[in-house]
Amino acid sequence: MDDGEHRGPWLRHSRTRVHAASHLTAYRDEVTLPDGRAGHYDWVDVADQVRVAALVDGCLLVVEQYHYLSGPMWQLPGGSVEPDDEDSGTAARRELAEETGYFGGDWSKRGAPQPLPALTPARVHLWRATGLTPGTAAPDPFEADLRIHHIPLEEALSAVREGRIDCAASAALVLAVALEDDSARR
Amino acid sequence: MDDGEHRGPWLRHSRTRVHAASHLTAYRDEVTLPDGRAGHYDWVDVADQVRVAALVDGCLLVVEQYHYLSGPMWQLPGGSVEPDDEDSGTAARRELAEETGYFGGDWSKRGAPQPLPALTPARVHLWRATGLTPGTAAPDPFEADLRIHHIPLEEALSAVREGRIDCAASAALVLAVALEDDSARR
Repeated sequence: MDDGEHRGPWLRHSRTRVHAASHLTAYRDEVTLPDGRAGHYDWVDVADQVRVAALVDGCLLVVEQYHYLSGPMWQLPGGSVEPDDEDSGTAARRELAEETGYFGGDWSKRGAPQPLPALTPARVHLWRATGLTPGTAAPDPFEADLRIHHIPLEEALSAVREGRIDCAASAALVLAVALEDDSARR
Repeated sequence: MDDGEHRGPWLRHSRTRVHAASHLTAYRDEVTLPDGRAGHYDWVDVADQVRVAALVDGCLLVVEQYHYLSGPMWQLPGGSVEPDDEDSGTAARRELAEETGYFGGDWSKRGAPQPLPALTPARVHLWRATGLTPGTAAPDPFEADLRIHHIPLEEALSAVREGRIDCAASAALVLAVALEDDSARR
């Protein structure tokens, strides 16, 4: 009898790696579902992500880049946490510096929600940065098309509402910063 | 010579399905990267999602459920768009009714951002619903542990900030609705 590992109302019996690639690994778990039926749960392991609300003179730094799957996109600066135990704060500072050149300053965390909790346990760590110093960007060679815009906070909010900032984590972070700004002004 | 299909600065030469499961399919595309190197791009096809900000007497309906990958989680009601060409508005109404029983009312869209644009082209369609009528919930059998809470909007906002509402799309939608409410009150 295989009792398996309890996960709330689920029971996990075994795990098989079904596909491995550089930035994703797919697994199939044999499980007993909460209603008692046998089945499997397919899921994907990817690196945690970071996104940064970098405020410079009342503007947010916004990255414009062509995404292979999605086409042109505006996002807040960010990327993947390195797999070698990099912490999210280090990753956020590294990605901001690589993409925009900005470094230093004061950093505070704005949560780490899950983008697709039924597909992957990955999180997107959200950071707010102020008091930054400009420097020289050093984007990855395959990010040669990356462009940086300085967007006033109000306009960034419109870009979220109109779908130009089209990444859920970036949208959540712009909205969170706008709401703080709104509360501070009252 | 294979010219491939142009996608912005990328070139796609071929696509192979590397894993197929009930709710995800993994693909490997052979590509030429923007910097001219040959490589591959692994990605995942999953159904679009919906999340609903359902306002009932100044409260948001919040679903508490154990997620197999993530443990206990608070989210706004929602789920997957059905693959048979269901539109997102129909999916949002269906998921809200199944999970909470509420139906009818006035619905408006709040965008459809991408949760993980480097991994999947899937979107999360965000809806706001008011003037709803209570009815009988009919959750899926494997969602037997699902519980519904009526959370005042201010408390939902705190739950986002403290990470109790831990799903990026739910967080973005709570923040968007709170910001609208905030603007309306000034």
